[in-house]
Amino acid sequence: MCNFAAKLLIMWEILLLLHCIMNISDPHIPTLYLLPVPLSDTAPSDVMPQKCIDVACTIKHFIVENVRSARRFLKRCSRDIDIDTLTFYVLDEHTNPADVTDMLAPMTQGHDMAVVSEAGCPAVADPGALAVARAQELGYKVDPLIGPSSILLALMASGFNGQTFAFAGYLPVENNTRTTKLREMERRIMRERQTQIFIETPYRNNKLIAELCHTLPPDMKLCVASDITGQRQSIITRPLRWWSKANYDYGKTPTIFLLFS
Amino acid sequence: MCNFAAKLLIMWEILLLLHCIMNISDPHIPTLYLLPVPLSDTAPSDVMPQKCIDVACTIKHFIVENVRSARRFLKRCSRDIDIDTLTFYVLDEHTNPADVTDMLAPMTQGHDMAVVSEAGCPAVADPGALAVARAQELGYKVDPLIGPSSILLALMASGFNGQTFAFAGYLPVENNTRTTKLREMERRIMRERQTQIFIETPYRNNKLIAELCHTLPPDMKLCVASDITGQRQSIITRPLRWWSKANYDYGKTPTIFLLFS
Repeated sequence: MCNFAAKLLIMWEILLLLHCIMNISDPHIPTLYLLPVPLSDTAPSDVMPQKCIDVACTIKHFIVENVRSARRFLKRCSRDIDIDTLTFYVLDEHTNPADVTDMLAPMTQGHDMAVVSEAGCPAVADPGALAVARAQELGYKVDPLIGPSSILLALMASGFNGQTFAFAGYLPVENNTRTTKLREMERRIMRERQTQIFIETPYRNNKLIAELCHTLPPDMKLCVASDITGQRQSIITRPLRWWSKANYDYGKTPTIFLLFS
Repeated sequence: MCNFAAKLLIMWEILLLLHCIMNISDPHIPTLYLLPVPLSDTAPSDVMPQKCIDVACTIKHFIVENVRSARRFLKRCSRDIDIDTLTFYVLDEHTNPADVTDMLAPMTQGHDMAVVSEAGCPAVADPGALAVARAQELGYKVDPLIGPSSILLALMASGFNGQTFAFAGYLPVENNTRTTKLREMERRIMRERQTQIFIETPYRNNKLIAELCHTLPPDMKLCVASDITGQRQSIITRPLRWWSKANYDYGKTPTIFLLFS
């Protein structure tokens, strides 16, 4: 019997040792998920894999650009989410970068977190990248989830070169630097065969198209991709010659512009 | 009774007229769908919204990079798909661009079609863009569907600048043009704050990291994003100083590289 107890003790110690080894080889490193949201008034299930919606429903700590729209998005992911049990940290254009480390505090306690932007994929053309950069520095896992990106969808549908392309964000506002920027884009299209992608404040969409028509060569091609994934999605590629005579009104609809030759 | 027949005839003509008017204001323009496929051995439902899988199940005419893998993908979308009723047109690196118009023939008969690439989003870094360009020229609708893009997912998870970035495809193979290209990337990172994204033939992954370490400044940051969406996904951002001393083996895994400072 004493022998049996000794054997039991040895087995218990082996089990403990195995447990330790397994914990060492696979410690729980918290994950920062990058959670896309719809671009327009679409249901999350129309633009995101179910797996991403499932992640959205399990996370308790969010870094968001806007609390109100993040709450609305989560409610649309599942009616069963108890929003009041969730914590939201605001990371927007007014945030002091020095404050980002504090936002990741739940991860030091082993919790997973998610970054949610205002529309589309977080950390692309929004302040979320600051949280990702900090999480990378601190050695956390970063897991980008799949969802709608107006930049990528517009590029796919433009028919332009996808082997090499550049996204420039907003064009400069000041006239001279703006023209210089357009000339530089023209050079990169001709010399590097690089598709040029950029955006504009929506109410200036129509004015921008007219400006491109009188600044750039008429045989250069412009793709105007408007209300992507929305009810009135329209993605049209034509030479500037065509655009200069066309009837269009992109009003205040979010629109993305691509140039190629 | 004769009066009644006359009324019926008038009503019938009104109905015909209405039908014509409705057809004119909303003619059926065929759509070219851009249908992403998983990047790794993942189930389609893990990386694509159900809506995209539903589209995949209804299309009868496909433009594909490889017939065998396209059939396998469609079978994974739904077991009920009758593959033998589908038509596949091959558009790969060996296709003569002049043949692309013929591939779109089903659209002239009013059928929708879909472009499917070998992995990820079609028409980005693959020959599918030729079919999209032609469809745009012919005035068809182009509808990009949502799915995994290694370029976009890597950018999101890198923590680098997403306000302006460039994808360069493969680096040049020849030593001098390769070094020139890396120097140009370094300049664009420093002057334009533009994140630089590129790929390499997988078996050269490890060699490329070593090359970046001895060509570029040690405080420049490199993000190595490997097996994205796969079982062994790893996305790590560190200074080149760290990479030059690190143990890594990216073997032959598809990997994407990003530089920023």
